[in-house]
Amino acid sequence: MQGQAQQQAYDRGITIFSPDGRLYQVEYAREAVKRGSASIGVRTEGGVVLAVDKQTRSPLMERTSVEKLHKTDNHIGIASAGHVADARQLIDFARRQSQINRLRYGEPIGVETLTKEVTDHIQQYTQVGGARPFGVALIIGGIENGEPRLYETDPSGTPYEWKALAVGADRGEIQDYLETNYSEGMDLDGGIDLALSALGAVNDDELSPTGVGLATVDVESERFRMLDDEEVEGYLDEIGILEGEDDDEPEE
Amino acid sequence: MQGQAQQQAYDRGITIFSPDGRLYQVEYAREAVKRGSASIGVRTEGGVVLAVDKQTRSPLMERTSVEKLHKTDNHIGIASAGHVADARQLIDFARRQSQINRLRYGEPIGVETLTKEVTDHIQQYTQVGGARPFGVALIIGGIENGEPRLYETDPSGTPYEWKALAVGADRGEIQDYLETNYSEGMDLDGGIDLALSALGAVNDDELSPTGVGLATVDVESERFRMLDDEEVEGYLDEIGILEGEDDDEPEE
Amino acid sequence: MQGQAQQQAYDRGITIFSPDGRLYQVEYAREAVKRGSASIGVRTEGGVVLAVDKQTRSPLMERTSVEKLHKTDNHIGIASAGHVADARQLIDFARRQSQINRLRYGEPIGVETLTKEVTDHIQQYTQVGGARPFGVALIIGGIENGEPRLYETDPSGTPYEWKALAVGADRGEIQDYLETNYSEGMDLDGGIDLALSALGAVNDDELSPTGVGLATVDVESERFRMLDDEEVEGYLDEIGILEGEDDDEPEE
Amino acid sequence: MQGQAQQQAYDRGITIFSPDGRLYQVEYAREAVKRGSASIGVRTEGGVVLAVDKQTRSPLMERTSVEKLHKTDNHIGIASAGHVADARQLIDFARRQSQINRLRYGEPIGVETLTKEVTDHIQQYTQVGGARPFGVALIIGGIENGEPRLYETDPSGTPYEWKALAVGADRGEIQDYLETNYSEGMDLDGGIDLALSALGAVNDDELSPTGVGLATVDVESERFRMLDDEEVEGYLDEIGILEGEDDDEPEE
Amino acid sequence: MQGQAQQQAYDRGITIFSPDGRLYQVEYAREAVKRGSASIGVRTEGGVVLAVDKQTRSPLMERTSVEKLHKTDNHIGIASAGHVADARQLIDFARRQSQINRLRYGEPIGVETLTKEVTDHIQQYTQVGGARPFGVALIIGGIENGEPRLYETDPSGTPYEWKALAVGADRGEIQDYLETNYSEGMDLDGGIDLALSALGAVNDDELSPTGVGLATVDVESERFRMLDDEEVEGYLDEIGILEGEDDDEPEE
Amino acid sequence: MQGQAQQQAYDRGITIFSPDGRLYQVEYAREAVKRGSASIGVRTEGGVVLAVDKQTRSPLMERTSVEKLHKTDNHIGIASAGHVADARQLIDFARRQSQINRLRYGEPIGVETLTKEVTDHIQQYTQVGGARPFGVALIIGGIENGEPRLYETDPSGTPYEWKALAVGADRGEIQDYLETNYSEGMDLDGGIDLALSALGAVNDDELSPTGVGLATVDVESERFRMLDDEEVEGYLDEIGILEGEDDDEPEE
Amino acid sequence: MQGQAQQQAYDRGITIFSPDGRLYQVEYAREAVKRGSASIGVRTEGGVVLAVDKQTRSPLMERTSVEKLHKTDNHIGIASAGHVADARQLIDFARRQSQINRLRYGEPIGVETLTKEVTDHIQQYTQVGGARPFGVALIIGGIENGEPRLYETDPSGTPYEWKALAVGADRGEIQDYLETNYSEGMDLDGGIDLALSALGAVNDDELSPTGVGLATVDVESERFRMLDDEEVEGYLDEIGILEGEDDDEPEE
Repeated sequence: MQGQAQQQAYDRGITIFSPDGRLYQVEYAREAVKRGSASIGVRTEGGVVLAVDKQTRSPLMERTSVEKLHKTDNHIGIASAGHVADARQLIDFARRQSQINRLRYGEPIGVETLTKEVTDHIQQYTQVGGARPFGVALIIGGIENGEPRLYETDPSGTPYEWKALAVGADRGEIQDYLETNYSEGMDLDGGIDLALSALGAVNDDELSPTGVGLATVDVESERFRMLDDEEVEGYLDEIGILEGEDDDEPEE
Repeated sequence: MQGQAQQQAYDRGITIFSPDGRLYQVEYAREAVKRGSASIGVRTEGGVVLAVDKQTRSPLMERTSVEKLHKTDNHIGIASAGHVADARQLIDFARRQSQINRLRYGEPIGVETLTKEVTDHIQQYTQVGGARPFGVALIIGGIENGEPRLYETDPSGTPYEWKALAVGADRGEIQDYLETNYSEGMDLDGGIDLALSALGAVNDDELSPTGVGLATVDVESERFRMLDDEEVEGYLDEIGILEGEDDDEPEE
Repeated sequence: MQGQAQQQAYDRGITIFSPDGRLYQVEYAREAVKRGSASIGVRTEGGVVLAVDKQTRSPLMERTSVEKLHKTDNHIGIASAGHVADARQLIDFARRQSQINRLRYGEPIGVETLTKEVTDHIQQYTQVGGARPFGVALIIGGIENGEPRLYETDPSGTPYEWKALAVGADRGEIQDYLETNYSEGMDLDGGIDLALSALGAVNDDELSPTGVGLATVDVESERFRMLDDEEVEGYLDEIGILEGEDDDEPEE
Repeated sequence: MQGQAQQQAYDRGITIFSPDGRLYQVEYAREAVKRGSASIGVRTEGGVVLAVDKQTRSPLMERTSVEKLHKTDNHIGIASAGHVADARQLIDFARRQSQINRLRYGEPIGVETLTKEVTDHIQQYTQVGGARPFGVALIIGGIENGEPRLYETDPSGTPYEWKALAVGADRGEIQDYLETNYSEGMDLDGGIDLALSALGAVNDDELSPTGVGLATVDVESERFRMLDDEEVEGYLDEIGILEGEDDDEPEE
Repeated sequence: MQGQAQQQAYDRGITIFSPDGRLYQVEYAREAVKRGSASIGVRTEGGVVLAVDKQTRSPLMERTSVEKLHKTDNHIGIASAGHVADARQLIDFARRQSQINRLRYGEPIGVETLTKEVTDHIQQYTQVGGARPFGVALIIGGIENGEPRLYETDPSGTPYEWKALAVGADRGEIQDYLETNYSEGMDLDGGIDLALSALGAVNDDELSPTGVGLATVDVESERFRMLDDEEVEGYLDEIGILEGEDDDEPEE
Repeated sequence: MQGQAQQQAYDRGITIFSPDGRLYQVEYAREAVKRGSASIGVRTEGGVVLAVDKQTRSPLMERTSVEKLHKTDNHIGIASAGHVADARQLIDFARRQSQINRLRYGEPIGVETLTKEVTDHIQQYTQVGGARPFGVALIIGGIENGEPRLYETDPSGTPYEWKALAVGADRGEIQDYLETNYSEGMDLDGGIDLALSALGAVNDDELSPTGVGLATVDVESERFRMLDDEEVEGYLDEIGILEGEDDDEPEE
Repeated sequence: MQGQAQQQAYDRGITIFSPDGRLYQVEYAREAVKRGSASIGVRTEGGVVLAVDKQTRSPLMERTSVEKLHKTDNHIGIASAGHVADARQLIDFARRQSQINRLRYGEPIGVETLTKEVTDHIQQYTQVGGARPFGVALIIGGIENGEPRLYETDPSGTPYEWKALAVGADRGEIQDYLETNYSEGMDLDGGIDLALSALGAVNDDELSPTGVGLATVDVESERFRMLDDEEVEGYLDEIGILEGEDDDEPEE
């Protein structure tokens, strides 16, 4: 590609193309996503798993206020990474769309439908002037017609469907871990184990229950469920990455 | 033409002409199209064929979510190349126009009519300020009055009718292939073979069924139909470019 | 005039004058017209003739989709040169004005009236901010009160009436040819011969029927009529510029 | 005044003052007027005379389509110089104002009233952002309460009343001629002679009837009247500047 | 203050402050006022006097069309200096306000009230974006509750009340003359003499009746009255500055 | 802080922060306040005192038209410093708010309430684009529930309550004087003495009654009252700073 | 990160991302918060404590007008730090939301609900053009369902819940103090002691009652209560940081 001076000429305008056909503002919004801590989604036969890194910057901050896991409807949850305030806007948008669907059609919104309404909304902020793109990526997971579905929205407004994915910090490393360890026939517990161990892989294989958020939407209940610290601790212990347990050799 | 410094002076404004009468933003949007993987359309006496390269960047991504083939109405399909989120906007626009036509006139929209409504919509984004052009090209194929029709829309908003065409990556090479191998009397199967072999020509003559999307609208049923992997595999096998089959000599 | 650096200072703003009273964006839009292939209009006692260069960039492209000849009303046709998508906007505008005239006054619109409604529309895009000028010139021909009329619209929004004119590529050379060879008393066939031979003059005196679009509005029928390839071939043959016929000495 | 670099800093904004209190865009619009061919107005006791230079750039262009003389109402005519498409906008505006006056008050609009409505309209384009000034000057002549009146509008939106004036190319030279040769007691024929000889003075004292437009509004009929070529030829012959007549000594 | 480069950085934006708290665009508009010829107002016990320099740039221009003295209501007149077309806008605004006052309250508008409505209108153009300030100063004089009042509006939108003032070219010199020669007990004739001699002081003590405009609003009639040339000549003669009279020693 | 080049980069945009969190346009508006002559407010047990420097730039200008003291409601007065035309806007706003309060609640507006409505209005001009901040500071004084109240509004839109304060030129010096000489138990006369002597302190301890404006709102009458020249002279004489009295040693 | 020149290129636009995904305008607004004096919130079992540094810049300024502690509803208070006028806008917004909640649902608004309505409002100013972000941070404390809640809003529009936090000047140092000294089981008095001693820690362990603002919302009354100077003095005395008491060794 061209040199840096060339690049600077095209990345300051909100809605214009560079000579090589790129939208720099959208690419920089992707950088904003990478500045956020990681979120992971895993789809299994038993349902979808959402796991997020929610370490706080101060022991006095309430972990619950680090908003990365959101119930959008009874049967759909969203994990986010990136600019927190932007994420809140999209979550609100998603919730309104879910409610409108129930009101208008008398039935829960489909996961794919919801995803595409969100991405169309995101796209508008990349083409029409007077605003910047959203600096956030979402993992939208839920049950649709009895089937678990797992989607991603990125700052360009493109929807993707995944078996398992990571967004935010260390995306590349976690995604590699997921590709290596994902197996088609996993049950929900297997999915939880995979999500947590993937998150552990970029945290020196050590996680504290308080530093992790975990939620599921299983095919039986079709209900979004947040797991409490005790449950998370159980899973971390089971897969041997519970912080402080066998931590007799701290990193030197 | 003038040197690079000269060019930079005129390509940052959305809606202005350069001294030699070019609209750089539209030309850069064409570069965005080239950044997308290839899509191909072939018109035969038996109907139109749409084939797209839909290789995913991760084995965990669902191929079906790589949206490049879209049913717009019963009798019309669209293949896209370029900025995915922009394509979704135009597909939505095309679908709404199709529905409006049925509601208003009680009959399916013509392929040409639909194309021109889409291109007029695209043109607005190249002349009026406050937005950027669409970074996407569409191949619109369908049956109109019993006749197969195949159109292209480009980022300037110009409609073209084709016998066979490619948009996106490697457009030049694929178009050459099509010009060399197209024959007027082809039936639908011949069109499918041509489209797949043209796509194979820029992929080392090897395609996997999962890396290809294939759809047709034939003159008999006048229905848009997505072909499944098995069918695609059959065609690839038939024309000898099925991946892994005779692949005893990998590229060194 | 001033040097190039001086010029650059004034040509990037859409709606401002340069120190010497010029509107550069309008002049650059004229360059966009010159980038389009040529269109010719000839007015004779028997009617008006519109001839256009419509060579395609690929043998697989349908010639009919190269839109340069447009029926605007029963008695009026328009030939365009320049930015194709812009031309479509103006043609649509002209058609709407024609329909409105019939609805409002119960009679066909006059050629002059239509031209001036189009040019007033064009002018707005050169004075009010937020949009660029139209990069297209039109030749509007038709019958008004039994008389053939032939007009030009340019990117500044100025209407001109002509006996014969060319717009687009090679305008200067073709206009010279028309001035030399136009005769007042020509009948419609003479006008067709003049238009085709003028077009041939900038194509090595060789034209293929498929590379030419030809239409007339004659004073008797007062109807816009597109000539088919056979008819065009007849005329080309008659005036000795049919491609491949006496082409024994290709250009070296 | 300051040097050129200083000037460039203030003349690119549409609606801002330079440090010495000038509006450069308005001054550049005046340059656009000078780029247009000359128009002349003469007021006599018998009525007003409007004369314009309307030479065409091609023998195939219809002289009548070079719009420089406009009937605005029965008793008012306008001659323009400068950007033709801009002039059309102002003429349309003037015609609407004339019609509104008749509808609202049941009587023809006064020449002064019309002039000031036009200049107020022009002024708006010099103060409010989002548009450029009009690049045109008008000479508005007519009969008001039995008296001939002759006005000028300039690109700043200032109205002036004149006994005789010129706008457009060679304004200075023609105005000098008018000041030298104008006499208070002239009748209408004297005014025509003065206008034509003034125009001739900057055309080597030679004019062709086809290169001149001539109109009058006389106090008796109070009607705008275009003179035909024969009449113009008569006047030119009378004052000895008819082209080709005594042209035995062409310029060497 | 800072150097010139520093100044340039802040004077191009319409509505922003410079680091030292100045609004350059308003100051430049004041320069536009100075570019206009002088206008003078004098308040006496018998009424207010408005005198303006209205020399024309051509003997063929009608002096009456040099608009510098305006009757705004029966009892109020306005003299202007600066950008003529801008002045017309403010005069129109003042007239409308006067009419509205009569309609709404059934009585003539006060001079102070009118002045402040005008200055508030002017101020808006100095604070809100999208337009430039008015390049004009007004002297508003009239009778309010039997008392003569004399106000100034400047381009910043500040109202001032004066006993006597000058605006436009040579303001400083004329104001000095007024300060030296003004006496509290003057009658209206004394005010006229003062205004004309002040104007003469910057014109080599010579004025022609045709180069001067003169109007009064006296406390008895409370009516705005334009003085005709004969009257003006009488006054000029009386104070010995009538042009050409004792002009035996022209400037060498 | 950073150097000057750095500063220039951030102070030209109306509504943006500099890297160190400052709003330069607001700070420059504060400079506009300092360019205005001083205004002083003093709160005593007996009421509030407002005193302003209102020297005129010409002996012919009416002192009363130097608007720095404004009655806003029966019980509230405002003294201003800075850009006069901007002050008028805020005074008008304050008056409207006072009237609305009476209409809506049937009682006079509180001084604090009024102040905060004004500052909220000011703040909007510092955050929303398309306008510049107000270049003016106000001292709002009045009686609320029988208690004297004294407030300041600054260009940022922050309200402050004061016992005594100065705004405008020499603010620092006058404020020091007030801090040194203010005593809690002062009666209204003591407040007047303090205000005038503080103003005198920056005028060589000499003030003319015509160069000073003085007003009070006392707790008994709860009425805004302008003091006339005679009264002012009395106070100046009393505190020994009446101009020309003991002025035997003019500054050399 | 990149060097300073690089940074400057991206921080002047209101709503755009830098190449590394940051929103500089939001970060600079955070600097505006740091320019404000400190505010502290502490949550205890008995209720929430809000303490603010409210030293005035002049002894004549009323301390009560330094607005940093605001009652928003009976059961909610807000402490602010940063740009005062911006804070007032958000406080007004919060009050309106509280009133609307009571009107619409007949019950007091939740502390979390209120916080999120405020942060969503803030976020809009960071994404949509035409305005700058709010330069203020809020600590929102109150009782919700009998439980004390304590939230922070920052200029990006992100809500956080805290046990104890500081915003404004010296945030880092005070936050460290809070983390070291916070204990879970504190009662309200303990919270007050912690807040005051934390504030004292950055003021040489000396505070004057007049330089501090203190408020509580306790779980019993569920009422916002401002503590008066006497009460504050008692607390300061108790913890041994009352100014002037044991101040025998002033800082040298």
